[in-house]
Amino acid sequence: MTVMKATNVHWHEGDITREDRHRLMGQKGVTIWFTGLSGSGKSTVAVALESTLYERGKLAYRLDGDNIRLGINKNLGFSAEDRTENIRRIGEIAKLFVDSGTIALSSFISPYREDRDKVRQLHNEAGVDFIEVFVDCSLEEAEKRDPKGLYKKARAGEIKNFTGIDDPYEAPENPEIHLHTDQMTLDEEVAIIIHYLESNGFLAGR
Amino acid sequence: MTVMKATNVHWHEGDITREDRHRLMGQKGVTIWFTGLSGSGKSTVAVALESTLYERGKLAYRLDGDNIRLGINKNLGFSAEDRTENIRRIGEIAKLFVDSGTIALSSFISPYREDRDKVRQLHNEAGVDFIEVFVDCSLEEAEKRDPKGLYKKARAGEIKNFTGIDDPYEAPENPEIHLHTDQMTLDEEVAIIIHYLESNGFLAGR
Repeated sequence: MTVMKATNVHWHEGDITREDRHRLMGQKGVTIWFTGLSGSGKSTVAVALESTLYERGKLAYRLDGDNIRLGINKNLGFSAEDRTENIRRIGEIAKLFVDSGTIALSSFISPYREDRDKVRQLHNEAGVDFIEVFVDCSLEEAEKRDPKGLYKKARAGEIKNFTGIDDPYEAPENPEIHLHTDQMTLDEEVAIIIHYLESNGFLAGR
Repeated sequence: MTVMKATNVHWHEGDITREDRHRLMGQKGVTIWFTGLSGSGKSTVAVALESTLYERGKLAYRLDGDNIRLGINKNLGFSAEDRTENIRRIGEIAKLFVDSGTIALSSFISPYREDRDKVRQLHNEAGVDFIEVFVDCSLEEAEKRDPKGLYKKARAGEIKNFTGIDDPYEAPENPEIHLHTDQMTLDEEVAIIIHYLESNGFLAGR
């Protein structure tokens, strides 16, 4: 490559940077990390936010159980070690998307504060932005919704270590955004996030 | 979520698809997988291609040792098992980028045919495109370039299992694109790839 460098200096000088992609996309990449109980509405708000961003010509990409647990993390189980590695990998992937200029929407329960804080730290160290969104919903309401029937199974002892039942959910202490999905409409929730993104310059080109 | 669905049907019907992102971006996501010896010029052509695509308003993102080995794969070593897992994870990440609408440029030696074929299969199963680019360069020429001084160390026995020296490089049998970097200019190499992308509709909106 040293040899090529000598004869092709213009290519190497022309490396595309994060700022170049920011300009190209008319948006700044950022990870929006939704955390909350099963059934709290993480995916629902992520899907609605994605649609709203799309209507504004912005590219978002959702990382969720469907494309992560069945893909890159299919060799991980549910031991404490594997759950931590699961979140670490998701954080690393989100960081790559942010670097690429995409708005990464991550929807995982991610119940442990330490794991989430490590993901935040990964972003900080790389000089990219991380927005933690606490999708707050009472356990009572989440269990009433029980969209996947998981609480019922957990109560029956068919699922062990289920967050909120026999495993703790550690709420964020200083999330950038705090949604109360048992008290807000979906439109309100999306509006709050869009306002945050606009106010902080994520939806503007350079 | 069942409850919310009933009152917010429009959001769920409005899920953004891969085709929507294709339209938004004016490009179709695809993985361009550069494989070849150390020093063959994989990164050089990836960087040049990225610049050329950028000038056309297209978003590409490079996956390489810098952002993968130091990030998501920092818990992997160089055993046979870890090298296979390294390539598997890169393949899964590339697949996510393609799904998001990005042109993913992967630059890793990836010496084993079976590992590369598995990445191709991952893409096929997900219904996304994969372009294998054989960055072909004679060992003699690659060793002469030796941009990182690795061949010298391998010859001195300081690095073990080095591809081309004491570990095999299994050349692609049917790559979509075959570059001869010891005979072509960088401009020619980029032009060949751009022509392929244009001819196959990757650079057009829908």
